Amino acid sequence: MSLRIYVDFKMPPDARQWLENNVGEHELIFPLQPMTSVLAKPEPDPQFQTADIAFGQPSVESVQQATNLRWLSISSSGMTRYDNDAFRTLMQERQTAVTHSATVFNRACALHAFSFMLAEARKLPEALQTQVAHSSPGWPDIRARSTLLEGDSVLIVGHGAIGRRLVELLQPLGMQIKGYRRRPRGDEGIPMVTEKEYPFALASADHVINILPESDATRHFFNARSFATMKYGAVFYNIGRGATVDQDALAEFLLFKKLKAAWLDVTTPEPLPRGHMLLSLPNCHITPHIAGGHHGEHMTLVRHFIDNLRRFEQGETLVDRVM
Amino acid sequence: MSLRIYVDFKMPPDARQWLENNVGEHELIFPLQPMTSVLAKPEPDPQFQTADIAFGQPSVESVQQATNLRWLSISSSGMTRYDNDAFRTLMQERQTAVTHSATVFNRACALHAFSFMLAEARKLPEALQTQVAHSSPGWPDIRARSTLLEGDSVLIVGHGAIGRRLVELLQPLGMQIKGYRRRPRGDEGIPMVTEKEYPFALASADHVINILPESDATRHFFNARSFATMKYGAVFYNIGRGATVDQDALAEFLLFKKLKAAWLDVTTPEPLPRGHMLLSLPNCHITPHIAGGHHGEHMTLVRHFIDNLRRFEQGETLVDRVM
Repeated sequence: MSLRIYVDFKMPPDARQWLENNVGEHELIFPLQPMTSVLAKPEPDPQFQTADIAFGQPSVESVQQATNLRWLSISSSGMTRYDNDAFRTLMQERQTAVTHSATVFNRACALHAFSFMLAEARKLPEALQTQVAHSSPGWPDIRARSTLLEGDSVLIVGHGAIGRRLVELLQPLGMQIKGYRRRPRGDEGIPMVTEKEYPFALASADHVINILPESDATRHFFNARSFATMKYGAVFYNIGRGATVDQDALAEFLLFKKLKAAWLDVTTPEPLPRGHMLLSLPNCHITPHIAGGHHGEHMTLVRHFIDNLRRFEQGETLVDRVM
Repeated sequence: MSLRIYVDFKMPPDARQWLENNVGEHELIFPLQPMTSVLAKPEPDPQFQTADIAFGQPSVESVQQATNLRWLSISSSGMTRYDNDAFRTLMQERQTAVTHSATVFNRACALHAFSFMLAEARKLPEALQTQVAHSSPGWPDIRARSTLLEGDSVLIVGHGAIGRRLVELLQPLGMQIKGYRRRPRGDEGIPMVTEKEYPFALASADHVINILPESDATRHFFNARSFATMKYGAVFYNIGRGATVDQDALAEFLLFKKLKAAWLDVTTPEPLPRGHMLLSLPNCHITPHIAGGHHGEHMTLVRHFIDNLRRFEQGETLVDRVM
């Protein structure tokens, strides 16, 4: 049976060609104005209402109107706009399957977080700028502020698939790693802290890594109280979503050096407006929401979709199914 | 028996206190002007000629004149000024033991090289500067130029203790790693290429990591011919010694983008003079000879010396003995 597959995002020619070659008897529908960002809000497209499958980041309104939709394949790891009870209930009532594409981006996200940790440990932002001479006092100083990470404590907040990969990468460094998540599954592979233990774990961590998704439960999860709880000289990393952090509070704790540094791949908004305080702080390091990015990501994304399409045809369990 | 131990470098008060507390019956002699850089040439000090043990980086002339010297404990990994046949012969004739301090700095050096690889993979120098918006063409571009490193080939040139640690750190990334050194020992743990195979390994490596020490045999080991042999888009890293690289040739191959990037912790001279071409190339990233640096390094160095002093007293084999 031929299904109508609506694809709402722009991909490079090789990935699109591969998608067209491998979609079999099914029909691909592309909008006239494809999305280029997972966070942009697309224009409504009447074609969408007749789709059986959606691949991309359609608006919630479009999905509500698309009564034929049997499978929504979200093309990102994040699924902020869909991650609420009303949407879950609707999908359940309509028996629409929802998958995201976490496995496509997990390894890059974990590597990006790890690159932040190493760049901080080796003082790269400063070291790549300075031409300090061996005989000057600044030289032993920057060496003494560099670290090996060995023995440091790490708390991974929102510990899921990205966190698991990060733990693999950290393994040779001999760090003390703990994790925290709303609903531990028991397969985390590292000690998980309970809600009651969480403040103590937060207070003793040298490195706090935020991988939380955005939802009503996580907005401003990291706030002035969190940063006040953290130890002096701790480093805060965010590769989850910007809205999970109270940025004014973060800026304040960075300004007064209670936190040694922050490394953020996500902010609110993205990019931050010129003149934003976080942009002016020398101990705040920001990359433009690229943690999941990697060479060939669209090809991997399309393969992930096609693999799942074969499963969907056969009635098998979909990979990365979240609803 | 009390030995006279000449210590020629400056260390923080805690490390010096620990040294004094643990040196036992032996006598510590400090110069009036302690060295602050491993590469500086100290003033001659007549006290040195009466020393039984030297801990630091004495000049070759001083060592030649110090006829009582029974053990030279070099306080760095590098030992350029001593690494020649004349010096080896002299030490052998006098039965003077020579150790360096590689085990103190290996882990930091390997971590620094690794931080270079990850910063390059995740495009950190560029990504930390840009505020590129998701909707702009630059955004998919920087994502597409980021990599996972997985499957990439690595050639470690001068593969010794630092290389072995680097291999441990790289292990979770699934890279293809080969090593090259003058005299393989068989305990390298990775495939080692012979001199005959070396050009082919160089030509196929995505990442070439130079950890060569400086000696007559290694000066300009990496020259125009090496860079011409390397594949288009390869990345060159140097955490060995600056003099092992023909910097003019490197600059040329970086300028024309035959090499994607270079990451250098060492140069000739250090620091490079203002206006040096390598400083102006956006794909050349330089840190000021800090790869071995880490918090507490002087304490670790002093412990390393005291451990060896106990061995020396007992006539046991010294750690990091090189002559």
